[in-house]
Amino acid sequence: MSATFGDNFKVTIFGQSHSEAIGVVIDGLPAGIKLDFDKIDFELKRRQGGDKFSTPRKEADTPKIISGYFDDKTAGSPLCAIFENGNTRSKDYSELKVKMRPSHADYPAYIKHNGNNDYRGGGNFSGRLTLPLTFAGAVAKQLLEEKGIYIGSHIKKINKVEDISFDKVNIGKDELISLKEEVFPLLDKSKLSEMEEVILKARNDHDSVGGIVECAVLGFPAGVGSPFFDSIESRLSHLLFSVPAVKGVEFGEGFGFADLLGSEAKDEYYYDKDGNVKTYENHNGGVLGGISNGQPICFSAVIKPTASISKLQRTIDVGKKENTKLEVVGRHDPVIVKRAVPVIEAVSAICLYDFLLNE
Amino acid sequence: MSATFGDNFKVTIFGQSHSEAIGVVIDGLPAGIKLDFDKIDFELKRRQGGDKFSTPRKEADTPKIISGYFDDKTAGSPLCAIFENGNTRSKDYSELKVKMRPSHADYPAYIKHNGNNDYRGGGNFSGRLTLPLTFAGAVAKQLLEEKGIYIGSHIKKINKVEDISFDKVNIGKDELISLKEEVFPLLDKSKLSEMEEVILKARNDHDSVGGIVECAVLGFPAGVGSPFFDSIESRLSHLLFSVPAVKGVEFGEGFGFADLLGSEAKDEYYYDKDGNVKTYENHNGGVLGGISNGQPICFSAVIKPTASISKLQRTIDVGKKENTKLEVVGRHDPVIVKRAVPVIEAVSAICLYDFLLNE
Amino acid sequence: MSATFGDNFKVTIFGQSHSEAIGVVIDGLPAGIKLDFDKIDFELKRRQGGDKFSTPRKEADTPKIISGYFDDKTAGSPLCAIFENGNTRSKDYSELKVKMRPSHADYPAYIKHNGNNDYRGGGNFSGRLTLPLTFAGAVAKQLLEEKGIYIGSHIKKINKVEDISFDKVNIGKDELISLKEEVFPLLDKSKLSEMEEVILKARNDHDSVGGIVECAVLGFPAGVGSPFFDSIESRLSHLLFSVPAVKGVEFGEGFGFADLLGSEAKDEYYYDKDGNVKTYENHNGGVLGGISNGQPICFSAVIKPTASISKLQRTIDVGKKENTKLEVVGRHDPVIVKRAVPVIEAVSAICLYDFLLNE
Amino acid sequence: MSATFGDNFKVTIFGQSHSEAIGVVIDGLPAGIKLDFDKIDFELKRRQGGDKFSTPRKEADTPKIISGYFDDKTAGSPLCAIFENGNTRSKDYSELKVKMRPSHADYPAYIKHNGNNDYRGGGNFSGRLTLPLTFAGAVAKQLLEEKGIYIGSHIKKINKVEDISFDKVNIGKDELISLKEEVFPLLDKSKLSEMEEVILKARNDHDSVGGIVECAVLGFPAGVGSPFFDSIESRLSHLLFSVPAVKGVEFGEGFGFADLLGSEAKDEYYYDKDGNVKTYENHNGGVLGGISNGQPICFSAVIKPTASISKLQRTIDVGKKENTKLEVVGRHDPVIVKRAVPVIEAVSAICLYDFLLNE
Repeated sequence: MSATFGDNFKVTIFGQSHSEAIGVVIDGLPAGIKLDFDKIDFELKRRQGGDKFSTPRKEADTPKIISGYFDDKTAGSPLCAIFENGNTRSKDYSELKVKMRPSHADYPAYIKHNGNNDYRGGGNFSGRLTLPLTFAGAVAKQLLEEKGIYIGSHIKKINKVEDISFDKVNIGKDELISLKEEVFPLLDKSKLSEMEEVILKARNDHDSVGGIVECAVLGFPAGVGSPFFDSIESRLSHLLFSVPAVKGVEFGEGFGFADLLGSEAKDEYYYDKDGNVKTYENHNGGVLGGISNGQPICFSAVIKPTASISKLQRTIDVGKKENTKLEVVGRHDPVIVKRAVPVIEAVSAICLYDFLLNE
Repeated sequence: MSATFGDNFKVTIFGQSHSEAIGVVIDGLPAGIKLDFDKIDFELKRRQGGDKFSTPRKEADTPKIISGYFDDKTAGSPLCAIFENGNTRSKDYSELKVKMRPSHADYPAYIKHNGNNDYRGGGNFSGRLTLPLTFAGAVAKQLLEEKGIYIGSHIKKINKVEDISFDKVNIGKDELISLKEEVFPLLDKSKLSEMEEVILKARNDHDSVGGIVECAVLGFPAGVGSPFFDSIESRLSHLLFSVPAVKGVEFGEGFGFADLLGSEAKDEYYYDKDGNVKTYENHNGGVLGGISNGQPICFSAVIKPTASISKLQRTIDVGKKENTKLEVVGRHDPVIVKRAVPVIEAVSAICLYDFLLNE
Repeated sequence: MSATFGDNFKVTIFGQSHSEAIGVVIDGLPAGIKLDFDKIDFELKRRQGGDKFSTPRKEADTPKIISGYFDDKTAGSPLCAIFENGNTRSKDYSELKVKMRPSHADYPAYIKHNGNNDYRGGGNFSGRLTLPLTFAGAVAKQLLEEKGIYIGSHIKKINKVEDISFDKVNIGKDELISLKEEVFPLLDKSKLSEMEEVILKARNDHDSVGGIVECAVLGFPAGVGSPFFDSIESRLSHLLFSVPAVKGVEFGEGFGFADLLGSEAKDEYYYDKDGNVKTYENHNGGVLGGISNGQPICFSAVIKPTASISKLQRTIDVGKKENTKLEVVGRHDPVIVKRAVPVIEAVSAICLYDFLLNE
Repeated sequence: MSATFGDNFKVTIFGQSHSEAIGVVIDGLPAGIKLDFDKIDFELKRRQGGDKFSTPRKEADTPKIISGYFDDKTAGSPLCAIFENGNTRSKDYSELKVKMRPSHADYPAYIKHNGNNDYRGGGNFSGRLTLPLTFAGAVAKQLLEEKGIYIGSHIKKINKVEDISFDKVNIGKDELISLKEEVFPLLDKSKLSEMEEVILKARNDHDSVGGIVECAVLGFPAGVGSPFFDSIESRLSHLLFSVPAVKGVEFGEGFGFADLLGSEAKDEYYYDKDGNVKTYENHNGGVLGGISNGQPICFSAVIKPTASISKLQRTIDVGKKENTKLEVVGRHDPVIVKRAVPVIEAVSAICLYDFLLNE
C-alpha cells in the first residue's frame, strides 16, 4: 500500500490541504530533458477552475522545483516539486474533527488513523492533491508527445445531458489538441448551454452534479502491456480510481458491451494501403488481452457529484458518539467534472509513460 | 509489469492453455491453516462450466499441491499448486500462427513477443489461466470467511435482460451464500428463462452474448485502504481488469452517479441502536476516499461477449502480410458471464485479503 | 530501481548537494505518534561533524516538516521533511563537469545520465543525502525504542588501529546507549589517542583513512525475516550498501567464519532460568536462515577512506577526451567513519522497523 | 517480504526439501530465446557435488519445464521449471520437530511459523532451494553472455588456506571460463592439495570448514545502477545474502579498505590507446556510487562452515521446553564452499541481468 506509483517512472505524492505544502517526487525521469514549464503551467491552469463553473480557492499553484533539475535540464536524480499552501485560512475546522461529512473520506480516515488524520479541508484526501498529480502528468505528457503520443478528452456527460462520443476509429490529433484549448471541452459544442444550465441550477439549489469524462490516446504503439496482472486496463484503472470522486472506469464500449452480440462487438483487422494494421471498428478501445493493439486507446471515467453541498445533512458525532446534523458551509464547486479533465489525462499520461519505460 | 500481484498475499500465475501445466504460487499465506479442499473444489467446479450454458473443455481441474503444505496445514513457505493440461488435443493450430483472431489477444501478443508467443488455444491469455486464479481466490475466501467476511455475486445482466440490483444497504449473508449454490445466480429468479433464451439463441446463431456481474462483500471492516495510490477501488479494479473479457468496473452507483444530484447521492451516517455506524443509503458502495467505510462493498464488472464466434471474419495474415478471412472452428461458450462469476469473486477475495494482511 | 525503500515503512529520498533542498518522504508511518524532535536533532548533530575529526560544511541541518504532521502528531499521511541547502557557495565547479574525480561517482554518473548529472558537490551522490536518511532513521529509532529495541554502534577500526569487538552474547542496553553520547564511540577507550593520531596524520598529509563500524541491535524479537529473498541480512545489507563509502558488510563472525571449524562456530541453545531461549555464543549475529533468532543482531560495515584527498591525481577529461590531472581543492574530511556511525544506525533502524511492520 | 526478486527479470522460488517438488517461475524473460539446456545442465551439475569433497544426496536434478517455452523458444510468458524431490527418504524426522539443530534455521522458523514449518531436511531453508536458483542463474548467464558479459569465480579461502586473489584490473575472459571447468576452481592450483587435506581432516573429525568465494564479472557496461537505494552493491548483496550460509559480502578491497589510506585506495582513470576508459587499479571492484564504472566487477562472499556436524550438541526441546542434546546423524558435506560457487554466480547473474533489463 503506497503513496508511490510506477515501475520506472515512479510518482510519490505527499501533503494535505492545509499542511505547509503539497508536492511530488518523480523518480526515473530520464536525464537531459528540458521541461516545458509553459505547458506545465497550462495544464495546472486547466485544473485550477476560477470560472463560473467552479468556486476556486485562489492559489498561486506555482511549482517550486526542489531537486532533480540542473542547468535547465533534468539531472537524472529524483525531481521534487512542491506547491505551497498559501491560502489556508485559519478558520475554525474543529466541528469537522468530530462531525463526519457524508460521502467524504472523513469517517473512514478517522477510523484508519484513529482520529489523528488532518481533517482540515479534507487533509490528505483533498482534491488539492491532484495538483502535484497534474504536474507529474504534464511532465509525462511532454515525454509522450515527444514520442508522438497524444492524450485528449472531453466531457461526455453532465448529469443527464450527453455529448456525443469519440469516433474511436477516426479521432484526429488536431481534434484532441484543440479540445485542450476549450474551457469546457465538448465534441458537440451545441450541448454547452444545456450543460451550463444544469450546473448553474445546481449551484443555485446549493446542490451539485456529476458527469463522465471520455479520454482518448493516439499514437500509442501496439504490443505494450501484459495479461496478468499488469494489463493496460489494470494499471490505468488503478490510477484513475486514485482520482478523488471517480467511481467507474470503462474501456471501449465498456458497460455497453453487455448489450452487444459477439458479432456486433468484433474488431476485425485489415492492412491499410500503407501496410499499417487497422481495425474496422474499435469496440475494445485499443486494448486486447491487456495489451495495446495500436488503435486509439479509449476509456471513460465517471465523476460523482461533488460531495460538499450546502444543505443540512444527517451525520454522526464521533466524539459524543451520537447522531447529529451538519451543514458544510462555504462555497463549493457545483461540479468538479470540468476540473477533473486534466487530472484524468495526467494520471493516464503517468501510467502510459511508465509502460513505455518498461519496454 | 508483473505476473505477481499482492503486497503480503502475493499471487504469481503461470502457464499457457497447452503448456505442460498451469499453476500458481501463493507467497505470504500464514502458516498453520488447514485448507478446505472441498470448498476449493466447489469453487473450481463453479468456474468449470459443462452445463447447457457453456461448452466446456472437459478437464479434471484438480490441483496438485507442489509445495507449502505439510502435515495437512500450510507450512508458511510459498504454496505452489499446478493443474495439468490433460486435454490439449494435438489439433492443428498452425493457421492461428499467422491469422489473428479478431477481438482476441493474438495480434497484440504477436507484436509484443515478436511472433514467439504460444498461440495454441490463446496461450498465456487463455481463460484457462483463471483456474489457478480461482484456486488462489478460494484460499483467500476461506481466510476471509474465518474473519467473518463474505463475498457473493449475481448476474445483473445478460445482453439486454436485466436482473434487479443488490439492495446495497440490506444485503444478507445468507442471500450471498445461497447465490453460490445456484447454477445461474440471480436475485430475481423469474429472469432466468429469458436469459436462457437469449443465450441459447446466440448459440444457435453461432453468436455470443456478454453481461454484467454484480458483487457484494459483507463484513469488511472500516478504515482499510489508502487515498493515493492504493485505494480499495484502485486495487480491486486492477485485479478485475486482469480477468479476461472484463471491460468496465464500477463501484456503488458507478456510471449511474452521472445522473444523480449531490443531494440524491449522499450517504448520510447514523448510529444504529447497537452503536454501529451505518449509512441510510450506500451509493458509494462501501468505499470513500479509497477507504472502506464499513458498509457492504458493492461493485460491478462488465464481461464482453465471447470473442470466439463461429462466423467468418475479416482479418490479417501476418505471415503473408495480407488481408484474409478466418472462421474460428470448434465449439465455443456462447456466454462466459456465468463462468466469470467465481473468477470475479476470486480476484476480489485475493485483493481484499491482501489488504487485511497490510493492516 | 528506486529512490524508495521499504515495504510498509517506505522511505523516499531526493535532492542534490546544491539543489534548492534535499529531503525525504516517509510513507507508512503510523498515525498518532508525537515525534521527539530533540532526539531527532541529537541524531542529526551526531552526523554533522564540526569537530577536529571532520571538516564540516557549516549548515543548519534543521528539518522543515512539509506534510504528514498535524496537531503535534503524525497524521497517517506521508511525512515529508526537507533540509534547505543554505551553504551552497557559488564557487566554480566547471572543472568538475569534465574532469572526473577518481574513486568518486562522477564518471559512472556522467555515463548513466549522459553528462546531465548535477556535478556540483557530488550532486545526488553527495554524503549530504545521508542527512534525510538520518532523519528517517531517527524516526524509526524512536518507534523501535517504544518497542524495547535499541541500536548502538562503535568504531571497530580506524586504519590499522582496532577497538575490541562487542561481546555478542552480553551486550548491555546501557552500554549501547552510552556509546551514543561519545564523540568518538569506542569500547576500549584507550584506543582513542592512537586513532586520533592516525586521523590527524592523514589530515596533515592531505590524505584520508577508512575504518569499520560495528553495530548491535538489542531486543529484536525472534522469528522475523524470510529465507528467500528478504532475509534480515539481505535487506540490511541492501540499505547499508546504499550508504556512500560502505564497501563490505558482515554478520556475526562475518569473514572470520572462514577460519572457524563447524564445531567452533556453533550456536548451541539453552533455556535460561526464566525460560528464555538463549545461545551460549552468538557467532551468527542473531540471524539464522535469514530470520532473527532473538539474540543480539550484530553486524559490521567497512567505510573506505574518504575519496577526496588534496593530492594531484591522474584522471580523464571527458570533454576533450584526453588524459589529464586534477587536484580536488578545498578542505576535506580526513575520515568519515565517525560521521557514518549514526547513518549506519539510521538505515538499520529503517530496515528493522519496516520488518516489524510486516509482521 | 517476498519469495520474488527482480524488477524486470523476476524470479520466484518455491518448495521444501521434502515437498512434492521445488521450482522457480521466471517472469520477464524476453520471448524468442532458445535456451541452451546443455549449459543449464552443466551449471546444475557444478552445484550437485557427488565427489570426494561433498556427500551429495543423489538426485536427478533435471528441470521439468512447465510453462513459458514453446516451439523450442521462450514464449514471453512466465517460464516455470520444477525439480521433483525423488530422493526424499521416509526416514523419521520427528526428533527434529522439537529438537532445534544449532546454527540452523530450525528455531527461528519454528517461531516464525508457530511450529507449522516443514522441518524435514531443512524445509524451505534447505540448500536444495539453491537448485532452482542455479537454474534461473544459468538462464541469466546465457543472456548475459549473449551481451558479452561473463561471470566467473574461484575459491579464495578454505579454512585458513588461502588462494591468491583476482588481479582486478587484468582478469581475462578465458581465465574466467576455464575456472568453470575445474572441480575445485583455484587461481593458484598448488593450493589444491592443502585445501583438500583440510577438508578431508574435517570430514574424518566429523567436523566442517567454511571459506570464501571470489567472483568477477567482465564486460558489464558502465553507467548501470543507482545511488539510493538500488546500487549494484545493494542488490547484489541482497541476493548473495539469500544464499544459505553466506555471512559476509565485500566489493573490491572490501574490509581491506580499512587498512588503506585514501592515497593507496584511489582508482585513477585514463584513456587507453583505443579510447576506452580504464582505471590503473580497481580497488573499488568496478562500482562507484552504486553505479558500474566499466571495470571488472569484483566481490567476495564468505560461506560459514556447514552447520550440520556429526557431534553431540546442546540444544533445546521446544515441545518439553527443556534443555537437551542432539546429534544430527547422517552424512554431511564437510564443506559447502565448492557447491556454493555456481550458486554465487547464479544469483549474481540474476541480479545483473535484471539491472540490464532496467536500462
